[in-house]
Amino acid sequence: MSKIKSIGVLCSGGDSPGMNCAIRAVVRSAINAGLDVYGIQRGFSGLLEGNIKKLDVSSVGNIIQHGGTILQTSRCLEFHEADIRKEAAHILKRKKIDALVVIGGNGSFNGTYALHSEHGIPVAGIPGTIDNDISGTDYSIGFDTAVQTAIDAVDKIRDTASSHERTFIVEVMGRKSAAIALHVGVCTGAENVVLPSDTLNIEEIAKDVKRGISRGKNSSIIIVAEGEKEGLSHRIREELKNDHGIDSHVCILGHIQRGGNPSGIDRFIASGMGYIAVKDLIKGEKAIVTAYRHGEVVTVPFSECLEKKTDYLPQYINLVKTLSI
Amino acid sequence: MSKIKSIGVLCSGGDSPGMNCAIRAVVRSAINAGLDVYGIQRGFSGLLEGNIKKLDVSSVGNIIQHGGTILQTSRCLEFHEADIRKEAAHILKRKKIDALVVIGGNGSFNGTYALHSEHGIPVAGIPGTIDNDISGTDYSIGFDTAVQTAIDAVDKIRDTASSHERTFIVEVMGRKSAAIALHVGVCTGAENVVLPSDTLNIEEIAKDVKRGISRGKNSSIIIVAEGEKEGLSHRIREELKNDHGIDSHVCILGHIQRGGNPSGIDRFIASGMGYIAVKDLIKGEKAIVTAYRHGEVVTVPFSECLEKKTDYLPQYINLVKTLSI
Amino acid sequence: MSKIKSIGVLCSGGDSPGMNCAIRAVVRSAINAGLDVYGIQRGFSGLLEGNIKKLDVSSVGNIIQHGGTILQTSRCLEFHEADIRKEAAHILKRKKIDALVVIGGNGSFNGTYALHSEHGIPVAGIPGTIDNDISGTDYSIGFDTAVQTAIDAVDKIRDTASSHERTFIVEVMGRKSAAIALHVGVCTGAENVVLPSDTLNIEEIAKDVKRGISRGKNSSIIIVAEGEKEGLSHRIREELKNDHGIDSHVCILGHIQRGGNPSGIDRFIASGMGYIAVKDLIKGEKAIVTAYRHGEVVTVPFSECLEKKTDYLPQYINLVKTLSI
Amino acid sequence: MSKIKSIGVLCSGGDSPGMNCAIRAVVRSAINAGLDVYGIQRGFSGLLEGNIKKLDVSSVGNIIQHGGTILQTSRCLEFHEADIRKEAAHILKRKKIDALVVIGGNGSFNGTYALHSEHGIPVAGIPGTIDNDISGTDYSIGFDTAVQTAIDAVDKIRDTASSHERTFIVEVMGRKSAAIALHVGVCTGAENVVLPSDTLNIEEIAKDVKRGISRGKNSSIIIVAEGEKEGLSHRIREELKNDHGIDSHVCILGHIQRGGNPSGIDRFIASGMGYIAVKDLIKGEKAIVTAYRHGEVVTVPFSECLEKKTDYLPQYINLVKTLSI
Repeated sequence: MSKIKSIGVLCSGGDSPGMNCAIRAVVRSAINAGLDVYGIQRGFSGLLEGNIKKLDVSSVGNIIQHGGTILQTSRCLEFHEADIRKEAAHILKRKKIDALVVIGGNGSFNGTYALHSEHGIPVAGIPGTIDNDISGTDYSIGFDTAVQTAIDAVDKIRDTASSHERTFIVEVMGRKSAAIALHVGVCTGAENVVLPSDTLNIEEIAKDVKRGISRGKNSSIIIVAEGEKEGLSHRIREELKNDHGIDSHVCILGHIQRGGNPSGIDRFIASGMGYIAVKDLIKGEKAIVTAYRHGEVVTVPFSECLEKKTDYLPQYINLVKTLSI
Repeated sequence: MSKIKSIGVLCSGGDSPGMNCAIRAVVRSAINAGLDVYGIQRGFSGLLEGNIKKLDVSSVGNIIQHGGTILQTSRCLEFHEADIRKEAAHILKRKKIDALVVIGGNGSFNGTYALHSEHGIPVAGIPGTIDNDISGTDYSIGFDTAVQTAIDAVDKIRDTASSHERTFIVEVMGRKSAAIALHVGVCTGAENVVLPSDTLNIEEIAKDVKRGISRGKNSSIIIVAEGEKEGLSHRIREELKNDHGIDSHVCILGHIQRGGNPSGIDRFIASGMGYIAVKDLIKGEKAIVTAYRHGEVVTVPFSECLEKKTDYLPQYINLVKTLSI
Repeated sequence: MSKIKSIGVLCSGGDSPGMNCAIRAVVRSAINAGLDVYGIQRGFSGLLEGNIKKLDVSSVGNIIQHGGTILQTSRCLEFHEADIRKEAAHILKRKKIDALVVIGGNGSFNGTYALHSEHGIPVAGIPGTIDNDISGTDYSIGFDTAVQTAIDAVDKIRDTASSHERTFIVEVMGRKSAAIALHVGVCTGAENVVLPSDTLNIEEIAKDVKRGISRGKNSSIIIVAEGEKEGLSHRIREELKNDHGIDSHVCILGHIQRGGNPSGIDRFIASGMGYIAVKDLIKGEKAIVTAYRHGEVVTVPFSECLEKKTDYLPQYINLVKTLSI
Repeated sequence: MSKIKSIGVLCSGGDSPGMNCAIRAVVRSAINAGLDVYGIQRGFSGLLEGNIKKLDVSSVGNIIQHGGTILQTSRCLEFHEADIRKEAAHILKRKKIDALVVIGGNGSFNGTYALHSEHGIPVAGIPGTIDNDISGTDYSIGFDTAVQTAIDAVDKIRDTASSHERTFIVEVMGRKSAAIALHVGVCTGAENVVLPSDTLNIEEIAKDVKRGISRGKNSSIIIVAEGEKEGLSHRIREELKNDHGIDSHVCILGHIQRGGNPSGIDRFIASGMGYIAVKDLIKGEKAIVTAYRHGEVVTVPFSECLEKKTDYLPQYINLVKTLSI
């Protein structure tokens, strides 16, 4: 069995802070091992357009500290089609790219795994999404930075909430994923957290806010995961007002959560993942994901990382509530 | 003419980062000069409720670095009524508070000046509002921190915008004031800035975005001052989409701009203003505002600082446009 | 066996960011469970002086986001003496404190465990030290924030190093512990890392710097753990100059690494540790430490957490070197 | 008189945050006006080596938010020699560079002015140095960011100082300039500030520390400008210990003060300065500096900006002392 001599790397799906660290680790580890490395611009869309260039060690100099991704990224819906993947496989062969590293979420992982299954191309997935919702790994790159950005924002909002004795509803990212909201809730001393899987319970939120006021708190913060339907926070504000006479303000943190310099955790894990992805592809692995499990970066079969993780640990809700009494 | 022996201090209107620095400077300067100092909680509302306590040097220890205000603040609409101000004057006299320092915006300044005019109470105003829109002073406390917070947010959005080749519409605070939007526009390399006083010109925004794309830019940022009618940014997004086929995302920065640790500039100017306010009240001044003019903290007649400043320097728009070609 | 009805909490040894989060979690969890809680000021020294006050839920309001510790801390050498610990046990009994939570490093844990062994007082240890060098736990509170502070500093130094084509030697904390230096090395793209356990190899450092220059790098960063003997970084600078003709600058990051707002990770883990410490003491545990193992907060026997952890994972050195080629 | 058709831009001396903003403004303003622009790498040294490349609008894309300088910088001592400047003038003519913009401190300004005087080359100086010590301008680019970095560091040190009831001596940059030390002193609530021009008065420092302790402060911070002789802070520590029995810790902030993302103020002023420098050179000005005076960017004769500014406003010392009682 012949060894791989070259490797391609791309980012796919939403960007997340730390992708640059993973790219840097892939490129330098591969060059250090004697491989050629190709950067594929704009995800699978760029691959299909042949938007590919050879990278050297300097290509990834001075990027470890920057958010975003120098390779850019895209959501490529047509990659769900087998024909399109066949074309991608041809392009990779024509460009003499023997293996592919894909940094992205579980949507991108599904396409990557299909590409491997159908065309035999060795692939490594590096989990990169701020939602931390990929099955098979405890962590995906960008989550810590996103949580930190949201925490910093809520800390600022707490300043003004306390100065005015106000209630704020702060909406964080998470269409289906509770992870950001739960962590931000614990870390900011929020009075309540509303999660995508929950049935909205305005009575309870109102009770928490009123209890806080009655024991002398000068502000309340409710953290809301955005959920799948736009407008949740505004709906909560209106119901708090109409049904419980509670005035509140809405803050939607939005896209600031995707950017910013990657945190230490994200840099560290992304560096380890990029390094091990290349190492294992060189060893002859065919379809792996660099997962974070039990506090360590390991590689696991690609097939374990294709689902969206929607569960969360209910004890954290309890933690939020107990600690904000 | 008898000298003042005690001083009260309160915050009024919206909170702004640096108010704590001003409070600290007032308290320590006054105590250093042998005066008694009283902290009035929650603005004029707190004054009317007698929510007043004597402060010592330790009361303001370790607050210089924190956003918000330890005295809290409020908007007290009833203070527009002469009867209510009369009551306030009585309370001040009963509490033996000889002079009053008010940290706030021009709405609060109007009430303060009326209190002085009608009841002879010596007053000093310290300009504190993130909007920097008080007549008679080039600067009001909190503006630099608010601008910095917005810049940091746009820097993060730029990361994700560049990674996805996207256009973002970022809404900053400023109902009538162009100041934050203009500064953020210059400092983030925005492609265009929409100001409260402008007639909305979607054609021009679309032209700027398209020019940027055609010359190879991988992202565009439009900074929008919120204006007086909610929903401006969403309206711009829809018109860009419908009339010009341009996809864009909206980010409304909101209340994060009010909080956060005060910047060096805000700490420095607030400290100087608190110091000079007390000094001049002790000297016998009756109605002054600590203004920032030509790069210096000075005191000016209160009557010069009662209006909302709505003008801005049009050359900055030109600067934004020239520098983002 | 009677249940505990009250709990005392103190910080001991060097302070670390996140101690406030742990204090808050202990206080609120205990009050929520119906216990009385006593804050002991300034560590074991304060305990011996009877510097103890009852805390309520508001005592720990609005502290989750602040560095340092509201209880203050101290190194109490005399606590190594059995007589002194006997006195401490008496004081606890007199004040009706049934159990003690100690937040600190392994020196403090030894004293705490002796107090328990000799006098039967139920104790829980919460690992708090930026050095992350306590046996039996993968993490101690403050480490992530300290690493982040050092990374932010090195990012700034990288700016000026790149602008001037310079070599910088950056000294981070770690007398015996390699943890901060290794993480900062990986996360900042350092060219080399010098660890406490290493024999200093100037030749290799010089080789790394020269290799970087010859391949076109415009700056080099060497991360040095301070070690036990002051002056290591300056010695390296002199040897690089004298023996290899390499000019370099020294930056000693020092105490800034101990302060600052706790990061999300530190807030999250500290909150979980405080919560579980109280829960398990109430359950009847007598001597536990809240350890972080395999990505989770668990409780383990106190006796497992008494040593200083000096090992580190040698693969990280390899990672630093491979990724900075 | 013929108009200039091209312009060169370089950075000289120590780097400072915001230089990239000034470069961007020069490049885009010049291209917008139809000029050719040349970036000169590594200051006057690079000019002498012909290290010059033509820049386009994209060359300065996405740099406004980054510290350091993409053109790099150097101290070129040989530029003090007339022969060398003659050579530089020849190179500029050969490369068809009609005018030169120099971003730097007053050392660099002297060389630039001599180049103009001797060879008639139109020049514009943009003040860029964190020391803010150039005559003729109230501000030079980088000062605000450097002060902010130092403030952030002292805020962190305050956390640990308060937790341990300690005294810290924090050394900031400023060989001859008092500006950083004074601003940091005011903005961090320091107990005392030691300036380059002062005779060291240990008695007074000791008195301030002791007064703070006796009135219940739990920490003291002394800000020290580095001065011209290394080791000042350590000398203060020893004298405090030996003569007054006061224990203290030393923190030397060092080069972190030169780096970091430029603050809003630095971005704003640098953008304005770059813009106006180009505008006035095009108008036909021959030797100007873009100065900040009375809160505005203006151009002034080059000859007014050749000295080092060593005076400072003594009232700030008084402010530090009054506010830290």
